[in-house]
Amino acid sequence: MPSPGASLIPDLLAGSRRALAQTISAIEDGVVEAPALLSALYPHTGRAHVIGVTGAPGTGKSTLVNALAKAYRAAGKTVGVIAVDPTSPFSGGALLGDRVRMRDLAGDPGIFIRSMATRGSLGGLARATADVISVLDAAGFERILVETVGVGQAEVDIASAAHTTLVVEAPGLGDEVQAIKAGVLEIADLFAVNKADREGADRTVLVLQMMQGLAPAPTGHHRATAGSALPQPGPQEDGSWLPPILKTVATRGDGVEALREWIERHAAYLRALDGWSRREAARAATELERILRDRLLAHLLAALPADRLAQMVTAIVRREIDPYTAAEQLLTQAV
Amino acid sequence: MPSPGASLIPDLLAGSRRALAQTISAIEDGVVEAPALLSALYPHTGRAHVIGVTGAPGTGKSTLVNALAKAYRAAGKTVGVIAVDPTSPFSGGALLGDRVRMRDLAGDPGIFIRSMATRGSLGGLARATADVISVLDAAGFERILVETVGVGQAEVDIASAAHTTLVVEAPGLGDEVQAIKAGVLEIADLFAVNKADREGADRTVLVLQMMQGLAPAPTGHHRATAGSALPQPGPQEDGSWLPPILKTVATRGDGVEALREWIERHAAYLRALDGWSRREAARAATELERILRDRLLAHLLAALPADRLAQMVTAIVRREIDPYTAAEQLLTQAV
Repeated sequence: MPSPGASLIPDLLAGSRRALAQTISAIEDGVVEAPALLSALYPHTGRAHVIGVTGAPGTGKSTLVNALAKAYRAAGKTVGVIAVDPTSPFSGGALLGDRVRMRDLAGDPGIFIRSMATRGSLGGLARATADVISVLDAAGFERILVETVGVGQAEVDIASAAHTTLVVEAPGLGDEVQAIKAGVLEIADLFAVNKADREGADRTVLVLQMMQGLAPAPTGHHRATAGSALPQPGPQEDGSWLPPILKTVATRGDGVEALREWIERHAAYLRALDGWSRREAARAATELERILRDRLLAHLLAALPADRLAQMVTAIVRREIDPYTAAEQLLTQAV
Repeated sequence: MPSPGASLIPDLLAGSRRALAQTISAIEDGVVEAPALLSALYPHTGRAHVIGVTGAPGTGKSTLVNALAKAYRAAGKTVGVIAVDPTSPFSGGALLGDRVRMRDLAGDPGIFIRSMATRGSLGGLARATADVISVLDAAGFERILVETVGVGQAEVDIASAAHTTLVVEAPGLGDEVQAIKAGVLEIADLFAVNKADREGADRTVLVLQMMQGLAPAPTGHHRATAGSALPQPGPQEDGSWLPPILKTVATRGDGVEALREWIERHAAYLRALDGWSRREAARAATELERILRDRLLAHLLAALPADRLAQMVTAIVRREIDPYTAAEQLLTQAV
């Protein structure tokens, strides 16, 4: 299946940044060649370690991602950074300011940074992110840091695309018990309490330990004694993984190297216990389902008369039909 | 199409809270009768004003939602409250604490409060929320407040289900310019700067005005003079709507009645300019698309041999095939 974009692939695989940037743009723009490009690149993927980084606004996670990228470069690894902003319709908008801090890395061919935003089609962002991960993977980047703004569905989507998920918290973001949601326990492989030089960092650590069931809720003036009595984070005897809680001050680089080492330890844990291929299977299943959903809807709409969908929407608004019955009728008509 | 659940409907329409709670539980659990229940209820919907409330953790939006619900009760309106937590897999988990504050309203038949969480199927949450909105609408609740935790995709989904979207901000959540994302401008019909008794509230208002293009960026010691020179919020001469920025202190009730009046003004604006039916059409189109996507995928999976999908996922993980080609093959096989 020859396509204008196919000529990009040898250059991309040979390390051309221009071909890389053009391929990513083609995917973001949803050009007609995009699926063919991705099909051609796919055999070259599967080598990168994908690390999702998520957390609420104000936790300093962009700075932490930058510091982690530098730590990986210092350790001799190539790094791709994808900054995903599901709240901004402007590519590179709000996040561009953060990326300015990366200027000192700009001349380094071992790092590639890309901001992604919604460009109108919000539902497509998660899929585009998965596609750009594949492109950076094929281009040979060894570690891919995927940063997302906000809490909610977006962070769950990132977790489904990552091997390792880092949840960033910070002291003083209002009521910690409210800010740190139960859902993050489901997705976090590691916690970073960033801005750990601020007041309340120990309390944030304690809240996370409480959520992990490791520390009792503090009552009155009694203080839980963190330390020797707690199980050690990392691989457990039963084969599970207890997420470590690491203090960082990303602006000074404090704790960043320790965090990087813990990320590597998590990758080793996954690889040792077949967890890696299970996460790969989950990633593949998620991506396949997304593609199928989009294709199926596109096929259905193509099979319907041009204004049939609009007529149905009008009928729903007028309460002449309900959405479930409308869906059944459209499905029957399109067959 | 008779179903066990159908007997709930007359009771629900007659105002039975028990039937209402059972219907919502049936929908959340995804029982087989759920679509039939929703079809039967649909002709009774379309009367409620749906108000989405969103914002970052720590803005106090749960407290503000509670205060708004009380203000609506004081104004003689019945109110449904749906608290959606996309980050928690536990129904009523993290949000239950907030709901405790509503105890003084618990005996009031004019209010109904429901917390919703993911229960495993994350993608289904937005659809379940839309369904519960329909149920409360059919049950006669005049105003439906839909609160969501977090920023990101979830708030965009809520905006697609609401007539009026309120974005809650608060001073002191780290760097405001970072915390207040460009994307909220796209969805906000009103802004509340809650916790307005805290230091920095005026700065938060100013940042929002800057984002609206109403105030110049402050430079040095020059202060922008907010007030007379600015266009008034609300309906504009060109038919557009300029979102008002309202200061509130929800814990004391300050500014809540003014906020409620602005919400009503937005509804009147929508109704006067055909905006209401345009939002209804957008809501109907979104819901129809969601149902179609789910049904199409379910039909496809039913048409495939049992382990075909698992085989394909394994082949993708082994890089024997790419996800796009895999999707095409599955689509062809199922026809």
